[in-house]
Amino acid sequence: MSNSIKIKASGSVANVSCGFDCLGYSLDSPADILEITKNNSSKINISMTGLGIENIPLIPKKNTAGKAIISLLSKLNINQGFNVKIEKGIPPGSGIGSSASSAVGAVYGVNQLLDNPLTSRELLVHSMAGEAVASGGFHADNVAPSLLGGMILIRSYKPLDIIQIPIPEKLWSTVILPNYTINTKDARKMLPDQVALKSAVNQTGNLAGFILGFVNSDFNLISRSMKDLFAEPVRQTLIPGFKRIKNSALENGAIGCGISGSGPSIFAFSNEKEIANKIGIGMKNAFSKEGLSSKVYISKINQNEPRILD
Amino acid sequence: MSNSIKIKASGSVANVSCGFDCLGYSLDSPADILEITKNNSSKINISMTGLGIENIPLIPKKNTAGKAIISLLSKLNINQGFNVKIEKGIPPGSGIGSSASSAVGAVYGVNQLLDNPLTSRELLVHSMAGEAVASGGFHADNVAPSLLGGMILIRSYKPLDIIQIPIPEKLWSTVILPNYTINTKDARKMLPDQVALKSAVNQTGNLAGFILGFVNSDFNLISRSMKDLFAEPVRQTLIPGFKRIKNSALENGAIGCGISGSGPSIFAFSNEKEIANKIGIGMKNAFSKEGLSSKVYISKINQNEPRILD
Repeated sequence: MSNSIKIKASGSVANVSCGFDCLGYSLDSPADILEITKNNSSKINISMTGLGIENIPLIPKKNTAGKAIISLLSKLNINQGFNVKIEKGIPPGSGIGSSASSAVGAVYGVNQLLDNPLTSRELLVHSMAGEAVASGGFHADNVAPSLLGGMILIRSYKPLDIIQIPIPEKLWSTVILPNYTINTKDARKMLPDQVALKSAVNQTGNLAGFILGFVNSDFNLISRSMKDLFAEPVRQTLIPGFKRIKNSALENGAIGCGISGSGPSIFAFSNEKEIANKIGIGMKNAFSKEGLSSKVYISKINQNEPRILD
Repeated sequence: MSNSIKIKASGSVANVSCGFDCLGYSLDSPADILEITKNNSSKINISMTGLGIENIPLIPKKNTAGKAIISLLSKLNINQGFNVKIEKGIPPGSGIGSSASSAVGAVYGVNQLLDNPLTSRELLVHSMAGEAVASGGFHADNVAPSLLGGMILIRSYKPLDIIQIPIPEKLWSTVILPNYTINTKDARKMLPDQVALKSAVNQTGNLAGFILGFVNSDFNLISRSMKDLFAEPVRQTLIPGFKRIKNSALENGAIGCGISGSGPSIFAFSNEKEIANKIGIGMKNAFSKEGLSSKVYISKINQNEPRILD
């Protein structure tokens, strides 16, 4: 058994339009890289490099990766210590699952170093415990896709019920990350406690249509279904130029477009790589007009678990 | 071309649990039988026999069948009159699409007699116009399954977007109709204008799970998903002994159970005919204890359009 492992844990898009708070999918990039090594103590030592690390606590129980490992080791009743070097490729507050990736990479790597006592699905609750340090609540819509890959439905939290959705072969994802930060907790506070029954029914119908569209690779149905009546109407005000950026994506051929997580990232689906690229260029230009630089990530939906690097 | 036709238009179950206001399915029975004959005038003459006809108006524009035909003929700009004899097999106020069946049978039959100028899907809006006379609003969740067969998702009304859902081969439906009447309009008034965002998210997750369960013939997932957080909590008080009846269905092996339409009918799903029968007997006994006689209808989901009888 090795004493050291290097893990790539991908970012993810949660609140996938009509799937607010119950759908998320995994990206190829950006990702966090975690190098985890057993040490000779029972201590967890965290160190970080990379993007947006200034405000991330290194105290293990306040760090998403640290807390996730603590949760896992407590479950396994194991006293082993680990050194965890995190290279943040996903800046916090970006809306593409930064804290989830660190938590997922940490438990995935530690589980490997312990010779896989738990299945990936069993690691989910520990990743969630880690991510909760940053998000302030137990959420699975970033953690589950980052850990399991693919497009994930969280049907229920009590009990936790996670279902993988078939993915159309030709589906491409474009994600744009502007140089701008939104606090997840603040974005959550904006949400209404109540919604109109009519909107709620529409949203259920749209998510059902979205699922059937994915199952049948029916891009037109996916497109018709991609409307979020819960979060987008209030949260779009947090993102400079959101409407113009979304319109540019749709004009460039996007099947649908929405806020990734609680923003400021924005995702769009398309059915060709060329269109995915065109959408990215268009959104980048639109953000430029708002005075914001941005990064674009284009890939198919990542259907893999975290990758073990050499 | 014949001058006369006889149509069997099936009842249907709307508000299928987590699919409140957006899912409905077609039954084999009960059904309305409509005998439609061209006459030598431009008038529509309605006559009725059968169950619960006392309060159904015969004036065409106030009758669901009559109004549906008026809507269709107006669209086609045709002045032909028809005699419509309706044998009501589905009593009004039963919650299994009584008014929808009459409206559907009427336009389906008239369209046949006119040599099918419209497709079945095109008949939908005219059936809806007919059903609106009784229900007080434009709904498709009884009309669409009765007209097209199967399990139907109404993704949206504006524009109307209707999608057929694959049906697990082994799925059986048990419907019980007690001798008790609920007014659809009153049941609609009971509904809250607003629902908690949390409940709305749960309902979207459950409907998504329900759809995936149907697609994958995953009865366990269907079962876990069959919870209605919108209507059942308030409407169950309208049905004497609802909780006991639902519990008896679940104890007898039902995958799920809920109010059919706005009640008082109750539907349950199971994965064997024998279990479907057992569920029916159990629910019938439970209604007896409430002092109510009842009828039980057992079938697979009816995947056919209205039937033309000899």
